[in-house]
Amino acid sequence: MKTLALVTAVILSSAATALAQSSAEPRLPVPSDDIGSVAPALETYAQATLADKLWRRPGLSVRDRSIVTVAALIARNQTSDLPAYIKLALDSGVKPSELSGIITHLAFYAGWENAMAAVAAARPVFVERKIGTEQLAPAHMQLLPADEKADEARAASVEKAIGSSAPQLAQDTTDVLFRDLWLRPDLTPRDRSLVTISALIATGQFGQLAGHLTRALNNGLTQAEASEAIDHLAYYGGWPNAFSAATIARTVFEQARRAKIILNTRESQCPTS
Amino acid sequence: MKTLALVTAVILSSAATALAQSSAEPRLPVPSDDIGSVAPALETYAQATLADKLWRRPGLSVRDRSIVTVAALIARNQTSDLPAYIKLALDSGVKPSELSGIITHLAFYAGWENAMAAVAAARPVFVERKIGTEQLAPAHMQLLPADEKADEARAASVEKAIGSSAPQLAQDTTDVLFRDLWLRPDLTPRDRSLVTISALIATGQFGQLAGHLTRALNNGLTQAEASEAIDHLAYYGGWPNAFSAATIARTVFEQARRAKIILNTRESQCPTS
Amino acid sequence: MKTLALVTAVILSSAATALAQSSAEPRLPVPSDDIGSVAPALETYAQATLADKLWRRPGLSVRDRSIVTVAALIARNQTSDLPAYIKLALDSGVKPSELSGIITHLAFYAGWENAMAAVAAARPVFVERKIGTEQLAPAHMQLLPADEKADEARAASVEKAIGSSAPQLAQDTTDVLFRDLWLRPDLTPRDRSLVTISALIATGQFGQLAGHLTRALNNGLTQAEASEAIDHLAYYGGWPNAFSAATIARTVFEQARRAKIILNTRESQCPTS
Repeated sequence: MKTLALVTAVILSSAATALAQSSAEPRLPVPSDDIGSVAPALETYAQATLADKLWRRPGLSVRDRSIVTVAALIARNQTSDLPAYIKLALDSGVKPSELSGIITHLAFYAGWENAMAAVAAARPVFVERKIGTEQLAPAHMQLLPADEKADEARAASVEKAIGSSAPQLAQDTTDVLFRDLWLRPDLTPRDRSLVTISALIATGQFGQLAGHLTRALNNGLTQAEASEAIDHLAYYGGWPNAFSAATIARTVFEQARRAKIILNTRESQCPTS
Repeated sequence: MKTLALVTAVILSSAATALAQSSAEPRLPVPSDDIGSVAPALETYAQATLADKLWRRPGLSVRDRSIVTVAALIARNQTSDLPAYIKLALDSGVKPSELSGIITHLAFYAGWENAMAAVAAARPVFVERKIGTEQLAPAHMQLLPADEKADEARAASVEKAIGSSAPQLAQDTTDVLFRDLWLRPDLTPRDRSLVTISALIATGQFGQLAGHLTRALNNGLTQAEASEAIDHLAYYGGWPNAFSAATIARTVFEQARRAKIILNTRESQCPTS
Repeated sequence: MKTLALVTAVILSSAATALAQSSAEPRLPVPSDDIGSVAPALETYAQATLADKLWRRPGLSVRDRSIVTVAALIARNQTSDLPAYIKLALDSGVKPSELSGIITHLAFYAGWENAMAAVAAARPVFVERKIGTEQLAPAHMQLLPADEKADEARAASVEKAIGSSAPQLAQDTTDVLFRDLWLRPDLTPRDRSLVTISALIATGQFGQLAGHLTRALNNGLTQAEASEAIDHLAYYGGWPNAFSAATIARTVFEQARRAKIILNTRESQCPTS
């Protein structure tokens, strides 16, 4: 409840107001003079549609919604209200090391300068909340074990797609992303996938969305959660991007269903014991 | 003429200069030291190509050009010169309630934070021009009548496309957008369509452009106006986006022509009286 | 070496630090407190992956990498660190007139307001380095000779694609872009192509990428350079955009190879003497 009140405060306040109030003050829904004085309807949508409905829907936790929103804002380079949403993420259970991991992940999936801008937005929040490096994941960590077989298949598919035209990029995809970044334990693979698909959808980059959505399901994101994330991103990434994403999700979900049926049929035919 | 002089002032001035001069001062074309001192050719293009040609072409009114430009800048989150272009919009006949409606519309079609940034850009202009909420559309208004039959067809098509993968998004598309936002009378459906296609083109979101272009023609935007808007957006949204939009427009215009021929043929075969 | 040290300084410093130090001070790699205090891993990637590896790869010169990076940042409207990268460009051999040409080119290929933001970012650097207009290309220059036959083919193809739906855009494409902007001698056609494809890739605008990549090869950019540029843009434009670009490059490179084989075969069959 406290978190949901903060949600309202963040949405209804201008960035400046939210920053001034959110840490010190009671996290009550404060109507923002700014929005209402320029667009009265927008203030009503903020309260009735976003704060009271969208963020309270049970299909996706407030923690996940804040991860989706932070990822969308970083990927879209929209930093004005990012500090307020970073605070909201911290207040709804996202750990500082996870925020740090999200920013690092998006340096590669959204662009280096997006991460630099996110660092600048996160820094004052970390200072204010006395979050020191001891609360963050160190630069070098014991990596998660790689799924060698699956990664070989991935590398072969990358090699086929771009090995002849961009061999260095194919190499970096393995060395920098899948044998390093994706194996860092500061984010769970499921959250890392959620961050990735949120960034892709929020910026309308659909070329790799089907692949990353499939990976997300394999990493433990449920179809229901992915579906709610897409709806959430309609608000923070614009309706057209979400709509296009939903059509891609339909195909991915159907393939997942067929793959499962085949698997189940095989299992019933070929018992393992 | 006065408005066209202001156009030149806006284009040729840096944001700061334009803001300082446009309200108090005579709206004369002032060459900007800033542009010329970094890129002399760019200053010439500003005067000769944008101010003297593009904005004066009769195919699209200055009012419409300012709507297209404001929509493009909000959708692209480019707020430095947005206050100057908002003033230009007000000076060329866009009502404060319409600007308010544009920002609200784009909260959903471009992303919530784009609207928040637009509110921050519009606020000082509204204060300076003493535009109070009595000049804005209220949050709750008598909505325009829905075209029930057409909207049922739209909802069925959405349901087919994304109903299985994103049921909540399909529901919100009806409840929030087409049974509410699109029926608000603070923007005419024709202007709302112009804002929508401008945002889609300026951000290179082509998945729904054909549909929204068709809707725009049905809402009273002429093909000639849509065509000029695409050319205008080459300058404010980048040439490649406009070029891609023009290829989609070709298909949409051809379909509209064929649909009309079929209709005319039917009418001549089946006289209504 | 001095330039590479500056590269490190730019990447590892926050924008503010880099600006403060780069001109007066020795250009040493200074670890940034900012990045490390929010994301320790990101600081390591900055040094080990970007500064020590990416920028030092011989496949693309530091001059070209700085052109690619500046073009990407302007096209993506990411101006915080743009002054630091503009300085790096100047220090690695990009002439002020070329930077001016890049900004002017991107006014049309990325959007007018992107160029305005770039002007604002470049101005203080030009002032600090005492770069006057005498070092810049004048607004009016003797244009490069047009390849009439090739441009007629281009115009015919544009006419076919968008002549019916956007005749003004088709006309402006000839008058403003290919009979004027592209013929300005302040950028070599090869560099102009490099700027164009960098902007397209960094913003995920793939509709015209194949055409501009083919043009780039014709203008003297090698496949190896284009390939390295795509890898470089994975870091500054996000991995997904670079990956999609690499799949398009594969097709373009294969077509170029086939065209060459056909040409060679013809030449051996039909000796010219």
